[in-house]
Parts: sequence; structure tokens; C-alpha cells
Amino acid sequence: MNKAIFYHAGCPVCVSAEQQVLEALDKNRFEIELVHLGEDPSKISAAEQAGVLSVPALLLDGQVFHINFGASLAAVKGEE
Amino acid sequence: MNKAIFYHAGCPVCVSAEQQVLEALDKNRFEIELVHLGEDPSKISAAEQAGVLSVPALLLDGQVFHINFGASLAAVKGEE
Repeated sequence: MNKAIFYHAGCPVCVSAEQQVLEALDKNRFEIELVHLGEDPSKISAAEQAGVLSVPALLLDGQVFHINFGASLAAVKGEE
Repeated sequence: MNKAIFYHAGCPVCVSAEQQVLEALDKNRFEIELVHLGEDPSKISAAEQAGVLSVPALLLDGQVFHINFGASLAAVKGEE
């Protein structure tokens, strides 16, 4: 089984957006772990060691992808 | 069928990295289109209208995700 870890820090707009990315992954091939670094700061050092520089980030089999969802102001205002 | 469009501009390190993201998507649910904006500049305006601000970017059902893979210098040097 491949491993996907999604690191975030709880911003609701970003969590919503990036869960769309996780939803799109092939769950037959990827075991998915969701790590909220704000709630679980003990995992920050492991994230750093994996190369995570910012959140949200997606780790696919150890390869870091920093996903920067440009939240629309409409989303921030709760209009979409 | 859901639609995933991956926009890039040909940087070999990034293409390699982001193809890992596409590979992880569930192909039973997503029809995947790969657009090289350097080779097909006629598609730039459609990308802009979709909200793409930078490449590489992944469009999942119309939602833009800007994926910034921080290429390691080792990768740039061809060492990994």
C-alpha cells in the first residue's frame, strides 16, 4: 500500500479545498493519513524531516508537494 | 466522470514530480488531461479563466490547486 499524508493547520477554507485533493486520490492504492499540526504539534518534527516547509502539504510516498490553494475572497466570506 | 486538468510549462523536474500526483488520482473517477502551456499557448486564456495563476496547477472539477513542488537542488543537478 502506498502512503499519502496530508499536513494542515486547520484553516477551514484550506481544509475544505484540500480534502477535495484527498478525495481524488485512489484509495485502493493509497493509505491516507490526515495530520493537523496545530492539534498534534508532536508531529511537526517528523513533518520537517520529511521536507515539509509549509502547510497545507501532501506527502506521497515520501515526496512532498506544497499545495497552495489560493482561497478566493468569496470563500473567505463564506459565499461559496 | 470527474475531470482533472494538470497545467504545466515543461520544467522536467516539476513534470516528473507532478506526474506523481496525477498517478495517485483515481482514474476510475477522473478523466485526466495534461496541458503543456508552453507548447499549446492557445490554452492559456482558458487556464486564466479557470483561475490558474501559476504552473504547475491542478484543476479538479473546476477548483484550482497550485502545486508548488520545491525541487531539491539534488534533483536539479540530476542526482535523484
